[in-house]
Amino acid sequence: MNDKFTLKCSGCGREFSPSPELYLCPECSKLNTTTTPPKGVLKAIYDFDVLKSSAEKVISNNFWDLMPIISPDSLPMLKVGNTPLYRFTDIDGKRLPFQLYLKDDSQNPTFSFKDRASSVVSAYAKENGISTIVAASTGNAGSSLAGICAAQGQKAIIMVPKSAPVAKLTQIVMYGATIVPVDGNYDMAFDLSIEATKAFGWYNRNTAFNPLTIEGKKTVSFELFNQLSREIPDYIFVPVGDGVIISGVYKGFEDLLNVGLISKMPTIVAVQTEGSSNLINNLKRDDFLVTPSSTIADSISVDIPRNFCMAKEFINLYHGETLSVTDNEIIEASMILSRNTGIFSEPAAATAYAGMLKYYQRQQFNKNQKVVVLLTGSGLKDLNAVSKAITIPNAIEPNIEALRKMNI
Amino acid sequence: MNDKFTLKCSGCGREFSPSPELYLCPECSKLNTTTTPPKGVLKAIYDFDVLKSSAEKVISNNFWDLMPIISPDSLPMLKVGNTPLYRFTDIDGKRLPFQLYLKDDSQNPTFSFKDRASSVVSAYAKENGISTIVAASTGNAGSSLAGICAAQGQKAIIMVPKSAPVAKLTQIVMYGATIVPVDGNYDMAFDLSIEATKAFGWYNRNTAFNPLTIEGKKTVSFELFNQLSREIPDYIFVPVGDGVIISGVYKGFEDLLNVGLISKMPTIVAVQTEGSSNLINNLKRDDFLVTPSSTIADSISVDIPRNFCMAKEFINLYHGETLSVTDNEIIEASMILSRNTGIFSEPAAATAYAGMLKYYQRQQFNKNQKVVVLLTGSGLKDLNAVSKAITIPNAIEPNIEALRKMNI
Repeated sequence: MNDKFTLKCSGCGREFSPSPELYLCPECSKLNTTTTPPKGVLKAIYDFDVLKSSAEKVISNNFWDLMPIISPDSLPMLKVGNTPLYRFTDIDGKRLPFQLYLKDDSQNPTFSFKDRASSVVSAYAKENGISTIVAASTGNAGSSLAGICAAQGQKAIIMVPKSAPVAKLTQIVMYGATIVPVDGNYDMAFDLSIEATKAFGWYNRNTAFNPLTIEGKKTVSFELFNQLSREIPDYIFVPVGDGVIISGVYKGFEDLLNVGLISKMPTIVAVQTEGSSNLINNLKRDDFLVTPSSTIADSISVDIPRNFCMAKEFINLYHGETLSVTDNEIIEASMILSRNTGIFSEPAAATAYAGMLKYYQRQQFNKNQKVVVLLTGSGLKDLNAVSKAITIPNAIEPNIEALRKMNI
Repeated sequence: MNDKFTLKCSGCGREFSPSPELYLCPECSKLNTTTTPPKGVLKAIYDFDVLKSSAEKVISNNFWDLMPIISPDSLPMLKVGNTPLYRFTDIDGKRLPFQLYLKDDSQNPTFSFKDRASSVVSAYAKENGISTIVAASTGNAGSSLAGICAAQGQKAIIMVPKSAPVAKLTQIVMYGATIVPVDGNYDMAFDLSIEATKAFGWYNRNTAFNPLTIEGKKTVSFELFNQLSREIPDYIFVPVGDGVIISGVYKGFEDLLNVGLISKMPTIVAVQTEGSSNLINNLKRDDFLVTPSSTIADSISVDIPRNFCMAKEFINLYHGETLSVTDNEIIEASMILSRNTGIFSEPAAATAYAGMLKYYQRQQFNKNQKVVVLLTGSGLKDLNAVSKAITIPNAIEPNIEALRKMNI
């Protein structure tokens, strides 16, 4: 039995014993509608007071006491997380007046940050004897779950809106997952996956539904704590769609606060695209206004951010900042990032980098501040998004005179 | 001055001091024609006798004494190599009667094995004050050099045949490299890049031309030696096109033999595709017969294998084995690999896995033999190759009855 943690409702404060059948708070989720962000997303709570008394042991155990899994053997063998953190000192030949760190999460088995969540969900299913995991997805989460399940010998069922691009589906099918295209949008696929979970006894990986996705995503914060030699960065730029990654980043640092390993929360900057900024636009409203989303950063293109409530709570409590950038700024940022670092990121990741560039242009960083940008996935995941921004020159005759004329 | 190594011609045996202007053996390369594999590819020789007397120090220095670079600071900051080695015990639920290890080189900054070569070439250019590097490429080598140069603040110029697919060029352009499409085939781009090297004083990264590409690629053997706790694998399956990767694998183990850290060479299996097997088909011929190549594994689709002479010498000397597989076997192997491991590889990498499967089917492995497969790049690099082999089912109505009918 897993008694490492309980699950607490961020809405009503009730605490529950974890079980593979428990996703949202049974009380608060009764109020959920299909037109507002769901309530009752649960948060894992550990025995922080006990852990606080042996905080150094938490570090030497590699934060395992703060993970909802009983045994590391339940995790996939694939190397998930522990991705590189690079410091870059210049952009386009200009010395930066702050310390820029890039966290390259394209270096994960399926080439995205989502593997952090999939691996923890998969391990929890394994420890509870469940061999089939379902998820609704339009891309990275689905391919991540499919890949992790392949490594674990589990069955993955991925429900996708029928409009999902074939390129994204290819990776899912290659991993041997069962793909279920649904004649409807992402929300319909999401709802069907939940219904199927109840009907067939599958485990469900949907983000902002399964509380363990946040527990997987929070591991990035533990790594930053280690990689920056226990110093807390001043800013962390995070791409935001449904609000789960940013909640994961907050949750990791909050755990560290709770066990006394850090004394303050970094300033986390939620970066959305102007074409899809329903999370940050609604932070100060009482009702919830949905503006239909449209952006090239398709993995953060979201009408109703499913983890809005928890993200809002974190942002308010820890004085988070918000920012939105245009699609053009994303493409521009993607090119600046690639040509300065050799890191080719998907548009969602370039969104966070674009946010950092905007702060830099506005001179919002002080000297020697530590600024981290979360690069959440490989640019190979979505070549089309940038292809219209680049030009391939015409072919030249294969001789040196023709080459000279190019004036390289 | 770099006096760590000399360059020896595998043809005539002459030794030369390295310099950024020295590529092929000046004597032997005089004999080169455009219709046979080039002669005079040089091999780096270290002071093996001295190193032999302190072999343990070679290991504790992480094999730095066997690298052609003076300072590790010259290498890119990006994490190149040190990729995971995974052991898998089953395929499709069947226990394997041997030890299967997969070396996942998709976990490199530009998502392919080629970064090993690019980083060493880039570092050598840096130590010799050269800031522009040129390469002829149809894909991975070009994007790798472009990415590594971006990280190093160097200028990359990539010459491509004009038929190269836009998807592969996108990554190159994003890294800020100058792309030069050439109205001709790969060989014409190759020759033009060499002419440009002389004309403009650029450094040239072409494989089987710049001897340091092999020095970069050999690092995979040092890692295998460490990851297998100094035990030598019985078999290593390597995808083969122009013969440079396999020469790199041999060179790494040969260095270890030369400094006395191992006492025998593993059996290295060169796997080509039936549509492009000019290297293995010519091993026993006196003349060189070119069969036009055609295969879905485009990064190993080669008419004249440029490193034929060195690869042949290694294969003969160390009793290497050879094998060819069909395109259908590659696609099938790619799916078996992905669904059993969560590792999605490009067709070239799946070629090596297909070779391993063939040996397994023919019961060529003894119990407990250690078998390594080199997975050289990410499947995201070439989604088209497998897309025709997979089927996406029709969309269902978004309700549970429709889902039941799918009989998942």
